[in-house]
Amino acid sequence: MKFLKAGWKEYFCASKIKRMFRIGQKDRETKARTGVLSTAHGEIPTPIFMPVGTGGTVKGILQRDIAEDIKAKIILGNTYHLYLRPGTQILKEAGGLHKFMSWSLPILTDSGGFQVFSLNANRKLTEEGAHFKSHIDGSSHLFTPENVIDIQRIIGADIMMAFDECAPFPCDYKYAQKSVSLTHKWLDRCVERFNNTEPLWGHQQFLFPIVQGGVFDDLRRASAEKIASVGMAGNAIGGLSVGEPAEEMYRTIEIVNEILPEDKPRYLMGVGTPVNLLEAIERGIDMFDCVMPTRNGRNGMLFTSEGMINIKNQKWSNDFSPIDPEGTSYVSRNFSKAYLRHLVVSGEILGGQISSIHNLAFYLDLVAQARTKIGEGTFKQWKTIMVKRLSTKL
Amino acid sequence: MKFLKAGWKEYFCASKIKRMFRIGQKDRETKARTGVLSTAHGEIPTPIFMPVGTGGTVKGILQRDIAEDIKAKIILGNTYHLYLRPGTQILKEAGGLHKFMSWSLPILTDSGGFQVFSLNANRKLTEEGAHFKSHIDGSSHLFTPENVIDIQRIIGADIMMAFDECAPFPCDYKYAQKSVSLTHKWLDRCVERFNNTEPLWGHQQFLFPIVQGGVFDDLRRASAEKIASVGMAGNAIGGLSVGEPAEEMYRTIEIVNEILPEDKPRYLMGVGTPVNLLEAIERGIDMFDCVMPTRNGRNGMLFTSEGMINIKNQKWSNDFSPIDPEGTSYVSRNFSKAYLRHLVVSGEILGGQISSIHNLAFYLDLVAQARTKIGEGTFKQWKTIMVKRLSTKL
Repeated sequence: MKFLKAGWKEYFCASKIKRMFRIGQKDRETKARTGVLSTAHGEIPTPIFMPVGTGGTVKGILQRDIAEDIKAKIILGNTYHLYLRPGTQILKEAGGLHKFMSWSLPILTDSGGFQVFSLNANRKLTEEGAHFKSHIDGSSHLFTPENVIDIQRIIGADIMMAFDECAPFPCDYKYAQKSVSLTHKWLDRCVERFNNTEPLWGHQQFLFPIVQGGVFDDLRRASAEKIASVGMAGNAIGGLSVGEPAEEMYRTIEIVNEILPEDKPRYLMGVGTPVNLLEAIERGIDMFDCVMPTRNGRNGMLFTSEGMINIKNQKWSNDFSPIDPEGTSYVSRNFSKAYLRHLVVSGEILGGQISSIHNLAFYLDLVAQARTKIGEGTFKQWKTIMVKRLSTKL
Repeated sequence: MKFLKAGWKEYFCASKIKRMFRIGQKDRETKARTGVLSTAHGEIPTPIFMPVGTGGTVKGILQRDIAEDIKAKIILGNTYHLYLRPGTQILKEAGGLHKFMSWSLPILTDSGGFQVFSLNANRKLTEEGAHFKSHIDGSSHLFTPENVIDIQRIIGADIMMAFDECAPFPCDYKYAQKSVSLTHKWLDRCVERFNNTEPLWGHQQFLFPIVQGGVFDDLRRASAEKIASVGMAGNAIGGLSVGEPAEEMYRTIEIVNEILPEDKPRYLMGVGTPVNLLEAIERGIDMFDCVMPTRNGRNGMLFTSEGMINIKNQKWSNDFSPIDPEGTSYVSRNFSKAYLRHLVVSGEILGGQISSIHNLAFYLDLVAQARTKIGEGTFKQWKTIMVKRLSTKL
């Protein structure tokens, strides 16, 4: 009896995991599909975009507006940032990140791998884990597959990510091969720790492993096989949108999604532009996150239903039409391009806030439209029109 | 017949002006009173605090939250900042500041005098006006009593301020005397321009003259006489809270308010702490503005119902109680001190936003409470308790 062999906990976890993702409708012409992710903090319709809330805040946006105006269903936190500030002691005393930041909907946490490897000079990789120096005060720290799970247990994310190495682009085959191999070893340790620990805050947590392998097809295939084999509730694709041409990213997604199980959610990490999202949805991706809508927004770059806008451009200085007349958020319809330009050019905080809210609402509306179109069976033709429109620079 | 002598316009203006302020209740023990200011964009209960929206934005706060969460009834704009950016051309094309910034409630604009005189090295004073260099690009400009009225006509503020010189503190008697004399000459020119021009956007505008005179009682008396004599709809007291001891400020208010007509609103410019507000209300002041709640807020200084908080202090790092359990705003009750400290210490934009919203809501609630207590006849005893409580450092 498999049940007895695996032990009660494994069986229990497996049975819960099975219910995490429910596919809704599959598109006939493409790999696109709708679905619902069920977590302890609420259901998430897919395809979904997840605003990035690095250090326990989506930069410049109140929690109320994230939920009600942007209509986000889940946000991200970063293990690296939260571990350094406010630190695990405070998060433990607070009862986890949800309570700490007064956010009642689902949270996903990145494992910190990507951040640590972005530190370059300030980190050293060993089989044991990643030694790194804090970007805040230079203090020394060690992330291991085990303690990264422990930290995410303290954070209490609904979805935790395995600790991986995100190889840079470009990188040679040998490095990528070694990197994937380390990521897989770390994954086994992550899964073991995950299976041998319990949630701290009374709600179920899921662990997603991450496919790596750069832009090398055979490494990606091998990684996808490995990731699929550990049988977690959902799977992620990392190491893309790090500088490679878009076509290589799309090809890699296709290769990996042939292998990742269809009945589990697929999360494409750190991607991307609105067009990237539509191309990836077409290839069977269900979840996205990216700093682009907030970071570019703060620099005056807007995504609208008519195309991209650099609001700093002189031509908007006396354009009193709404930021985006088709926009779904309060700010998109209530403030003019001229006013937003004035704020951004003047370095006013409100400029970044309005741009961030608008862009995130735009992303959330885009995936909502994609869900509708998949449901209606018109995704492919809608996507073709949208890709053209969204690529326009106004 | 006075009507014919003064001409139609003066009579018309005077008759409208008469209706601007309606006193509600007068406190029996003090000079405090409640009232209502009527403007084309709405009624304003007094005593009132006006959030400062320097360049067409109350820093870091969405217009919706200013009105609905902070419950502001009127905000300030600064002529100096708006003149430089976005500039009168854009404001004219937009149809005035209300439309430009999507704010439908009343606006008061400072005349720019205070800002220009804060430039120090970059300005030169003549009888004609103030020559100054832009703090943005060093370009040369001239403010005169006339063009400052013209600019405020373009901005379309419900309440415009006369162009004055705000003398520094400390300053010698001779300088203060000369400065007051210039301010009075400029006032006559402002009033003439005001009477000879019409609003541009179809709604009535008022002009408030400003009492100056440093901390010299005779200069203040003479200035108050002059300001009262021009018979505008309301009057302001400037040049206080510029470094003088609080007692000198309170004494000056008493002296000036003996002379300024009781049936017109009195606006104390740029003041101050919550305690300053209560002391001034007791002495017959009706209107206030100050950058303190937003500027200090961004630096982590909070005003709460229990006293002042420096949220950066280590002691708040694991205090998970609300920022202010008696606070009236969404942020005050919804976020913890520990969370806000984390945001402020981490330099997160949201820290400044939450602090600013909380502090402004606190100020608006304080004047609302003052109105209630005046109405109930218990202002004096309430004020005594509050002054003690608000002076506490937690």
